[in-house]
Amino acid sequence: MRCACGVSVAYLDHIRACNAFDPTQFRPFAVAGQTVGAVARDLIPRLLDFKGVFEDGERAFAMNPKLGGFDSRSKAMAAVTTDLQREGRIKGWRNEPFRVSSDFGAEPLLQIERAAAPLFGITSYGVHVNGYVHDANGLSMWVGRRSATKPNYPNMLDNVCAGAIAFGMGVRATLIKEAHEEASIPEAISGRAHPVGAIRYCCEGDGGLRPDVLFVYDLQLPTDFKPRPGDGEISEYMLWPIGDVARRVCHSFDFKFNCNLVVIDFLIRHGLIAADDPDYLALVEGLHRPRHIL
Amino acid sequence: MRCACGVSVAYLDHIRACNAFDPTQFRPFAVAGQTVGAVARDLIPRLLDFKGVFEDGERAFAMNPKLGGFDSRSKAMAAVTTDLQREGRIKGWRNEPFRVSSDFGAEPLLQIERAAAPLFGITSYGVHVNGYVHDANGLSMWVGRRSATKPNYPNMLDNVCAGAIAFGMGVRATLIKEAHEEASIPEAISGRAHPVGAIRYCCEGDGGLRPDVLFVYDLQLPTDFKPRPGDGEISEYMLWPIGDVARRVCHSFDFKFNCNLVVIDFLIRHGLIAADDPDYLALVEGLHRPRHIL
Repeated sequence: MRCACGVSVAYLDHIRACNAFDPTQFRPFAVAGQTVGAVARDLIPRLLDFKGVFEDGERAFAMNPKLGGFDSRSKAMAAVTTDLQREGRIKGWRNEPFRVSSDFGAEPLLQIERAAAPLFGITSYGVHVNGYVHDANGLSMWVGRRSATKPNYPNMLDNVCAGAIAFGMGVRATLIKEAHEEASIPEAISGRAHPVGAIRYCCEGDGGLRPDVLFVYDLQLPTDFKPRPGDGEISEYMLWPIGDVARRVCHSFDFKFNCNLVVIDFLIRHGLIAADDPDYLALVEGLHRPRHIL
Repeated sequence: MRCACGVSVAYLDHIRACNAFDPTQFRPFAVAGQTVGAVARDLIPRLLDFKGVFEDGERAFAMNPKLGGFDSRSKAMAAVTTDLQREGRIKGWRNEPFRVSSDFGAEPLLQIERAAAPLFGITSYGVHVNGYVHDANGLSMWVGRRSATKPNYPNMLDNVCAGAIAFGMGVRATLIKEAHEEASIPEAISGRAHPVGAIRYCCEGDGGLRPDVLFVYDLQLPTDFKPRPGDGEISEYMLWPIGDVARRVCHSFDFKFNCNLVVIDFLIRHGLIAADDPDYLALVEGLHRPRHIL
């Protein structure tokens, strides 16, 4: 699965990069008896200083069961994360609540500030969109360049639009919102996007663990339509033949880490990677990391 | 994920059916230090009667390491499976050698008769093809009915063509061969098929365990082309609107067990299941069972 150019990055390297973490450094994090994340072992002593909020059990590090409901858990967690942010353990603050639950469809057990979610290994759910064009020249894909002033991954290449699913938002509703805000794609066009699957990976990052799920949409854009940067997340859009996109993924780390997986999934679904490739199964299955991480 | 009709079969039921087995009843089966399958605990005493062929280790039930190479292992296994067939422990005999290896791309450690593979929980690799038509009426799919005289799953519904990948055959070569033999699709047409992913499941069946991998292809057939039964595996082909296929999968077990998963994967990739469906992630991820089964 290497390009003819012979350089050393390959599709599988991106799967590995998105799944790089040392499980021995983390303990499962449980709330109300359900595993919802993972906490770094060396953060545990600090967390136990917050009296009455956590307890270190045999099976998992857990929230104190006496914090009986959604509201009391969320309030206790907000106090903890505010302090941790002050101590410099959390970079940034997004004012975006993430749901904490054992699975996407499961009952939310509390909410947590987005920037603090990695410290507790909380799964984040996002939407990524492949914006492509099919014309007489074949298949092309719109690629965004992230703004130079973004705190995360500035200047890196990105999908046409993407965003985290905020607490209470639907998957499709997030797609419509991000397409509009980020890429100036009106709902009359973004509404034609098709959900085509989901990707799961887990890596260390942002001070903790990032077990992420990306819902993936394909959006065939009209040949006369050009996405435009909207909210400043993206500085420019470029339309590249799909072969150029594939080569860029295959032999560089120029795309933001998880966008590589979204492109690889697109290449697989559109028949652009041969099933006889020796890496084929590892690629297909590498996009779907098993849910229970520790 | 249930049809409006309200009957009790649903897409997830097919995922569950294809992954139903009791792991406590099996031990890993290893060859040359590599896990290649699983053996039922209650078959182990019988297998140990074959002097010098197997040994019951702490980590796994294993082939005797003194059987040093591919040929000697294959010969010893052939003697074992011939006896087991005589004893009625193996139904049928296909005269089709399966590779035994730790993974599809890995070095083959021995070969085993196809009908005997489930007794040792050997992963089988197959190709399944979605034959579809896209015209003014939308998307339709060709559905086959299996011959009434087939020993396995007679009269059940099936994909347009499918087959096991025999030892030494490539994935694409198997697709071309099966399309020709089973559905009378000439290479000029089957050659347009796109590989679009792979499905993995593991269930009890055929006297043992079936950890199967299906390489999936989409083949858009010309509107004026009609697949015809070739080798007698299929008795008739029917072209159904995709909604009818989806409903049939959703509320019946009329399709051969694993073909349901191939159709569900098609529905997901073609945007026909909403990402906001509460079962969405379970469906997407249920098509990719983790490789290490025990």
